[in-house]
Amino acid sequence: MRIGILNVTGYAGLELIRLLAWHPEMQIVAITGRSQAGKSLGEVFPFTGLFPNGGLAAMTITEDITTEVDLVFSGLPHKASAEALLPFIEDGIPVVDIAADFRLHDPETYQEWYQEHPCPEYLESAVFGLTELHREEVQQAKIVANPGCYPTGAILGLAPALAERLIPPAVIVDAKSGISGGGRSLTLTNHYSEVNESVEAYALQGHRHMPEIVQELSEVADTDVQVTFVPHLIPMTRGILATCYATLARSVTQQEVDDLYHARYADEPFVQVLAVSPKTKWTYGSNHCLIHPVVHERTGHLIVTTAIDNLVKGASGQALQNANVMLGLPETMGLEAKPLFP
Amino acid sequence: MRIGILNVTGYAGLELIRLLAWHPEMQIVAITGRSQAGKSLGEVFPFTGLFPNGGLAAMTITEDITTEVDLVFSGLPHKASAEALLPFIEDGIPVVDIAADFRLHDPETYQEWYQEHPCPEYLESAVFGLTELHREEVQQAKIVANPGCYPTGAILGLAPALAERLIPPAVIVDAKSGISGGGRSLTLTNHYSEVNESVEAYALQGHRHMPEIVQELSEVADTDVQVTFVPHLIPMTRGILATCYATLARSVTQQEVDDLYHARYADEPFVQVLAVSPKTKWTYGSNHCLIHPVVHERTGHLIVTTAIDNLVKGASGQALQNANVMLGLPETMGLEAKPLFP
Amino acid sequence: MRIGILNVTGYAGLELIRLLAWHPEMQIVAITGRSQAGKSLGEVFPFTGLFPNGGLAAMTITEDITTEVDLVFSGLPHKASAEALLPFIEDGIPVVDIAADFRLHDPETYQEWYQEHPCPEYLESAVFGLTELHREEVQQAKIVANPGCYPTGAILGLAPALAERLIPPAVIVDAKSGISGGGRSLTLTNHYSEVNESVEAYALQGHRHMPEIVQELSEVADTDVQVTFVPHLIPMTRGILATCYATLARSVTQQEVDDLYHARYADEPFVQVLAVSPKTKWTYGSNHCLIHPVVHERTGHLIVTTAIDNLVKGASGQALQNANVMLGLPETMGLEAKPLFP
Amino acid sequence: MRIGILNVTGYAGLELIRLLAWHPEMQIVAITGRSQAGKSLGEVFPFTGLFPNGGLAAMTITEDITTEVDLVFSGLPHKASAEALLPFIEDGIPVVDIAADFRLHDPETYQEWYQEHPCPEYLESAVFGLTELHREEVQQAKIVANPGCYPTGAILGLAPALAERLIPPAVIVDAKSGISGGGRSLTLTNHYSEVNESVEAYALQGHRHMPEIVQELSEVADTDVQVTFVPHLIPMTRGILATCYATLARSVTQQEVDDLYHARYADEPFVQVLAVSPKTKWTYGSNHCLIHPVVHERTGHLIVTTAIDNLVKGASGQALQNANVMLGLPETMGLEAKPLFP
Repeated sequence: MRIGILNVTGYAGLELIRLLAWHPEMQIVAITGRSQAGKSLGEVFPFTGLFPNGGLAAMTITEDITTEVDLVFSGLPHKASAEALLPFIEDGIPVVDIAADFRLHDPETYQEWYQEHPCPEYLESAVFGLTELHREEVQQAKIVANPGCYPTGAILGLAPALAERLIPPAVIVDAKSGISGGGRSLTLTNHYSEVNESVEAYALQGHRHMPEIVQELSEVADTDVQVTFVPHLIPMTRGILATCYATLARSVTQQEVDDLYHARYADEPFVQVLAVSPKTKWTYGSNHCLIHPVVHERTGHLIVTTAIDNLVKGASGQALQNANVMLGLPETMGLEAKPLFP
Repeated sequence: MRIGILNVTGYAGLELIRLLAWHPEMQIVAITGRSQAGKSLGEVFPFTGLFPNGGLAAMTITEDITTEVDLVFSGLPHKASAEALLPFIEDGIPVVDIAADFRLHDPETYQEWYQEHPCPEYLESAVFGLTELHREEVQQAKIVANPGCYPTGAILGLAPALAERLIPPAVIVDAKSGISGGGRSLTLTNHYSEVNESVEAYALQGHRHMPEIVQELSEVADTDVQVTFVPHLIPMTRGILATCYATLARSVTQQEVDDLYHARYADEPFVQVLAVSPKTKWTYGSNHCLIHPVVHERTGHLIVTTAIDNLVKGASGQALQNANVMLGLPETMGLEAKPLFP
Repeated sequence: MRIGILNVTGYAGLELIRLLAWHPEMQIVAITGRSQAGKSLGEVFPFTGLFPNGGLAAMTITEDITTEVDLVFSGLPHKASAEALLPFIEDGIPVVDIAADFRLHDPETYQEWYQEHPCPEYLESAVFGLTELHREEVQQAKIVANPGCYPTGAILGLAPALAERLIPPAVIVDAKSGISGGGRSLTLTNHYSEVNESVEAYALQGHRHMPEIVQELSEVADTDVQVTFVPHLIPMTRGILATCYATLARSVTQQEVDDLYHARYADEPFVQVLAVSPKTKWTYGSNHCLIHPVVHERTGHLIVTTAIDNLVKGASGQALQNANVMLGLPETMGLEAKPLFP
Repeated sequence: MRIGILNVTGYAGLELIRLLAWHPEMQIVAITGRSQAGKSLGEVFPFTGLFPNGGLAAMTITEDITTEVDLVFSGLPHKASAEALLPFIEDGIPVVDIAADFRLHDPETYQEWYQEHPCPEYLESAVFGLTELHREEVQQAKIVANPGCYPTGAILGLAPALAERLIPPAVIVDAKSGISGGGRSLTLTNHYSEVNESVEAYALQGHRHMPEIVQELSEVADTDVQVTFVPHLIPMTRGILATCYATLARSVTQQEVDDLYHARYADEPFVQVLAVSPKTKWTYGSNHCLIHPVVHERTGHLIVTTAIDNLVKGASGQALQNANVMLGLPETMGLEAKPLFP
């Protein structure tokens, strides 16, 4: 299959390169970039010369995809992403958008958090690509909106409890993210000396990923779910830990909760329920989401911790997982990488 | 004044050395250690040779304090601390215990979280040394129990809202701590390769600092406060960020909350209410607690973030603050160090 | 092929687990550990449940290998390693020793830097497993001594210049290593708070890896080579950068040196000569050694920088590379992992 | 004394703020910035509200210094620095330039490494402000050129050996610097995700700090010294470790070298010769340079390791040290801060 990647010089695009280097059925045939167009991939990222099919390092970064492709991934920022994907969508070519443009079903909500939507007519047919929740729709989709990095862990961690009405529709998500979540652009929030040896909360009045969590958890719970979401910046490159808090709606034992979660995710290749609280490092470089639900008897709360690698399950790995499903390939193909520990 | 420090080879003791090197009225006359007894301080920590009164580096670490002292700080672990302080307490010499032995008023609660108390008869007269809450009692005290690192930020952040009944007596504290909180002992939880590039929650069923938070917030609120407390390990050396969540009991504006917090801490030299959420790095090496309260209109929550340096305001700086108050010295003496940024 | 791993609970053993999980021809059938014997691998490392052939996580860690194996890797410390490998050696089973016991040909040199050798009679037939220098010997070997992490990059970086007598036999190697090089044991030199935000040189009078570098470079140069080697600890988990300095023996252009290095390593799958100085991060998790030679015209020096992942090319990846060669498998089998950047 | 600081929003300027907050004789009366002019210091750096004389946080950042001052520090980049200092120089007001503009005596060398000098007529009267080498000249100077961060440790470490002709005039300096050395501007070389968990060498063909080292060591040695200097980026915020290599010109014992170094620096308040190799962390936040010389008997080399905090002794602390000397104040005034360990 012939694959195009929009914006290969950001971290989402670069991570796709790493993952697709393993993929036996997908072949990268076009890579775009903006400021680096005209250079070879190897000039921008010298280590890509280590990749097989040395061809990759020699491939030229172009401004647009001009060759025929069977699927397009977009690693562009929002708005630019929808605009660049539009021609492919109109041609009926499957696309996976790692940006936010097709995640929210409601164009008004999109406009509230981003800007006016460039092509709202496609929102209805787009599928929110949290594969574990929407696998069958992804199979049929031409447009898959890859979830945000924060929503991925939060939704997977809370969905089983909300679906079973184990908790009322009001949750708190305290999320801790590595710095790579902020991308490769140059800002003080990813300046080494500013963020190293420091932790901070941000977007306390509301983060753009919040409406995604609300949308998906409300669908799972079949009622409006109130989400208090506070993201934090942590001095590490990769990983998101989400600590989720909710009041238990009824008395329940730890064993019952464990059984519920294990049953929900028993057949999922990329979700694992653990008996101990996960370190984000246990997912470093892999496409897994690790989940640990806890019945906090003292206060009657359910606490769920989830860990992912924000660039893999939180971005490019999940994009590939979706693409595999869209193209009828085995879902885990090319995603066999094990976490790098330590 | 002649000062003795028990267990100078742990991080709390070492940090006292750094702070007392500035202090115009206190003079370190005795330092103890266990495995390192017999060595000079300079042998164990070569950089102490940089300190003034070079005498310090040449001072011998002993097993016990045998010279006359006006006040004793203990940087020993719990239980060992109470046992080593007992002779001084019985002699009426003022002590500041950085360990947990005199923090909880109720010996049964102490026993539940630690072990049988070695000298429960002294619990009643011991003062919980969060200076901002108990300044007058500290002035009169002979035994001051320095608060735990986690409780310091959590209590300072929530006390004003609870005192005003702005929130009901049920709070969630999600705390993120640097690795030095685990001390200088050798464990996998402070092994560099295990904790670097990783975040994890721990003690999900209950952490020993929780009962301190309950005790103090309940006193402030004048009712039993339910505390859900989850600590996390962050890959940095120093700093604790506490993100505190509570439901607002009544409608209130951001301005009203700001006014409340500013009024509460207006005269406090080491507490500062900020209009932006603090980075822990803004307190690096200083004795300050930075607080940022937020009215989260979307969900009707109060969210308060607080930042401290866990080894200063969370341990030895606060111990010195208490000692100054006990001895009738200016409260800020020796605590002028500014945060090191970047 | 049936594989046994001695000491799977250290970082070398654990990294072998990660790499062998990819390997299509090798199957792990026995894993040993000392303090953790009796537990399953999944109990000690919960993330191993993510690995395929879930069997791995359920496999019991034993004290000794008691099943039949076709090859044994040892991740034990020196001395213990030779002792544990001896029965397999005597049975003619191929072994790859990641420890230092069979690296030095001369038992007296070994004794000088370690202790009396437990089985010096096997030193002669053991091969120093820097595959790029001794591939043909490794093919025939029953005992392969995997090189130390520091020597790997230093030797690969200097060998081409010494072989061509481009430099005299006197070199300086200033090496910078991540903390995982110190293993998983508990010491102050891998205590997070002691080494984070700090750099230090150590073993200034001589490090155990020095005689390996001397032995191998002297063989390459066909004369005794003088090596000044200073290792440094860097606050990162993985990676070694070696900066090598030598005086140029004759006038030479950058182009000539580039040609020499490219020619030497043209057919090597795991060595790449770069036109820019490598970041260690470009090798994170991969088995590659990146090399950048520089003619320093101002001073007439040759400077060579080399980067590896100390746990892969510097330990377990190279061990697998050697095992592949010993067993007649493709040398790169199971070693396809690409560097994780960022 | 009334002090002005040019470019208070870079790290050198900000660090001066921290240090001057302690200073009993200097009062900051003017602070400039470019993009932030018009804001208060507290708006740009909220933690400055913690500083005494709260006035500081409320002080407005201006484009130029328009009030009367007794001394000006410049934290501007080179060229801009000389241009902004020129009016003060012409008025005879003492200036300390933290940038490079007045460090090199020879305008042609300056032009080779930077650009044409804006005011070469002042180079002759400017003093290279490594206080330990030029104290008497600094006392008389109106223009002090603060040394670069790398030269500070390298020169202090090698000067005693060169002065005594213990080594010939040819040295190698392998330096490892924290990321803050690159300043607060936004580049990929201080982007967290690019530099974290990685080490790299840079400027292999020549770094701008090299000619400073050559100039000063040649003066000390009274002959041209050849310097091979390779800087490296280390994933930490502060600190420089310089590992210096030279061939011993004659047989000498460790004791003789120790005696030589101790004698040279016996009266220096900010230089300390240690019997162990320093960690950069032992200087974190302090104005000290730690030095450890080693006679490497095996190879006949002298190896000297030196550690500084690049923002203190390597920049603003040394600037204050020079200013104290220029103004006839005690040299250590305001520089009492102890290293923050851990």
